[in-house]
Amino acid sequence: MSATVLPMRGKRLADVSTPALVLALPAFERNCARLASLLSRSPAVHVRPHAKAHKSASLAARQLSQLREHGARVSGVCAQTIAEAEAMAEAGTTNNPIDVLLSNQTVGAAKVARLAALSADPRVVLSACFDDATNAAEANKAVGDVGGKLAAVVEADVGQARCGTPTPEVAASVARAIVDEMSHLTFKGVQCYHGGIQHVRTVADRGAAAGASHERARAVVDALAAAGVPTDEYVTGGGSGTFAFEQATGLYTEVQPGSYFFGDCDYGANEYAADEACDQSMWVMTTVISAHPSNDWVVVDAGAKAVSTDCGPPQVYHDLQAEPASSSDSQLTYTCAGDEHGIVRSSGASDAKLPRLGDTLYLRPGHVDPTTNLHTYWFLERDGIIEDVCEVNARGPGS
Amino acid sequence: MSATVLPMRGKRLADVSTPALVLALPAFERNCARLASLLSRSPAVHVRPHAKAHKSASLAARQLSQLREHGARVSGVCAQTIAEAEAMAEAGTTNNPIDVLLSNQTVGAAKVARLAALSADPRVVLSACFDDATNAAEANKAVGDVGGKLAAVVEADVGQARCGTPTPEVAASVARAIVDEMSHLTFKGVQCYHGGIQHVRTVADRGAAAGASHERARAVVDALAAAGVPTDEYVTGGGSGTFAFEQATGLYTEVQPGSYFFGDCDYGANEYAADEACDQSMWVMTTVISAHPSNDWVVVDAGAKAVSTDCGPPQVYHDLQAEPASSSDSQLTYTCAGDEHGIVRSSGASDAKLPRLGDTLYLRPGHVDPTTNLHTYWFLERDGIIEDVCEVNARGPGS
Repeated sequence: MSATVLPMRGKRLADVSTPALVLALPAFERNCARLASLLSRSPAVHVRPHAKAHKSASLAARQLSQLREHGARVSGVCAQTIAEAEAMAEAGTTNNPIDVLLSNQTVGAAKVARLAALSADPRVVLSACFDDATNAAEANKAVGDVGGKLAAVVEADVGQARCGTPTPEVAASVARAIVDEMSHLTFKGVQCYHGGIQHVRTVADRGAAAGASHERARAVVDALAAAGVPTDEYVTGGGSGTFAFEQATGLYTEVQPGSYFFGDCDYGANEYAADEACDQSMWVMTTVISAHPSNDWVVVDAGAKAVSTDCGPPQVYHDLQAEPASSSDSQLTYTCAGDEHGIVRSSGASDAKLPRLGDTLYLRPGHVDPTTNLHTYWFLERDGIIEDVCEVNARGPGS
Repeated sequence: MSATVLPMRGKRLADVSTPALVLALPAFERNCARLASLLSRSPAVHVRPHAKAHKSASLAARQLSQLREHGARVSGVCAQTIAEAEAMAEAGTTNNPIDVLLSNQTVGAAKVARLAALSADPRVVLSACFDDATNAAEANKAVGDVGGKLAAVVEADVGQARCGTPTPEVAASVARAIVDEMSHLTFKGVQCYHGGIQHVRTVADRGAAAGASHERARAVVDALAAAGVPTDEYVTGGGSGTFAFEQATGLYTEVQPGSYFFGDCDYGANEYAADEACDQSMWVMTTVISAHPSNDWVVVDAGAKAVSTDCGPPQVYHDLQAEPASSSDSQLTYTCAGDEHGIVRSSGASDAKLPRLGDTLYLRPGHVDPTTNLHTYWFLERDGIIEDVCEVNARGPGS
């Protein structure tokens, strides 16, 4: 595939074989600049973009560079699996290693061994999350065996009821064990992230939900301090829907937005404070492969293998747009019709142009991360030209 | 990845990094043998397994070999996209080319050019579907330009309302145009496939639905014959839920089961005629990465990136099972909790063992194809040992 895809740099986007994952660079760059500007309100807060959104080491490098150019304090990147962390290593060098936080648990001998191997990779400065002392002890031994360096972050459940220590006391006991018993791990701080509230729609409701999770985070920090394990230097969390709330707490030292740089229908449906909404930069380009002029629908080549529908169907446009919600193109609707097929219908409004066989359409995905995961390449577009092609090198099941 | 995965051949399955896609070879081989036996009722009917289910050239080679060993008349493989067809070429050689039917439309200059290039690849004997004469004419020109060989199949809509000519008359006119005007295409016959009825639950209802689609298929064949384009030598179609009905028509010359070899919850929920149900051979192996002993749930490392939920959640088992539906393990339930997380709950029954941190579980996916598409490798298991590793080399968005 790369033999046919990589030479596309400098060519017309219109000549790319669809379905294709497209990044509109002007919108992406506006998002980087806007995020840097938002974060400048709290000079102590760093940003660590979450790579699970783009899953590409070369796109990560571009993103970090853009953020730094606009004055953001960038600490590194997040990865959600050992495979993603390994992939991000490709954005680092021995002279300029990349700082990677594995923001999830790494359990099982095979994966702990890979975590240790990565901790000894000179291209990476590595941290990883733990919510269990036995798991941390296994990592400690494996890191020691290979002579690696690993910073340990205790993940606390602040309301999502997924991973993370269930109570502040358990968080403190895991942290205490790491400090006292694990000489190959450096205790770094806590992760307090609540994924379940990122799409609470109104600013007021989302702020209230975030506030409740911040209370839990503060209790964790207090419990660790009481146990003699101060964490106030590193409290990480904050997704694309809530990072402005975490930023304002005075508690969090780092936020982890991922989707913010790309946009999707689900984040687009949130209400935001003034000037805080991102622009839509991510698109799935698709082609009409079957048309029935007597009907009001056509078939496109983007199905479940090209665009996720777990957060609703994508919106359909004739062109790459900076402000999709305002476009009359939304008179076209998409229904998934299998792995390789989508049905695009006209709403029947008089000015809704039904596309024809061979036409190109652009889908605004419902959800960034699982859509990225379906693709092998990002095509980076500016003025209809492919400025760059970035491999989605962290794509995969996470093993 | 391959540096760590391919040396796993001969090792214990338990040592594989999860989430992992596992093929239980004994069940897969029973499915191949059963299918060959079922098809032996109609000696004229060939089988062309659909590669969209496994997306692996090396697994295709193993599958075709198994089927032939059990006496099935095998015509080749189906692919659903040009990328899948290109990937299947790796199972062919110049001396022993693989016969590939691209069972879908190939539209747009970039993809038509790739279709033509593949038609000139000596490792492949290629057919492709068309439902539009202009599209066929573009392919004809492109194939002529590269000196390739391409058999053209007219796809007719037999009730799914997706791709395919909308009426028998349009089918006949497209076929007529191919025969009369396109000297680089060889007209081969028709595809009459109805994906929408594969999961009609009872045998009676599914048979009735298939019967209605067969009437439409017969009208297409009749229209082509009336137009002087006989098609009775090649009528292809028939998925995993209905192929026994197509086989019995005397009309279809080829069936295209794909999921049959692997099984999933959705096909498992169908009622089948005696001895026609397949065994479950496909599993997603996962690890418990977070456990809260005071609660009734654990977190596993298989989320939306490892197992599809578009046809419902996977079923959860402690072991690879031949007959999952009969297992008491179904007291464990799975809920997707993000891209990298699943929540496994106990039903609360007294004998439901809630797994512990680090335990391995096996998920029976709701749907074969999109689950396969999430993975990079199939791990082929027998007696707990990895007998082979097959790359999912046709994985991708289909571009």
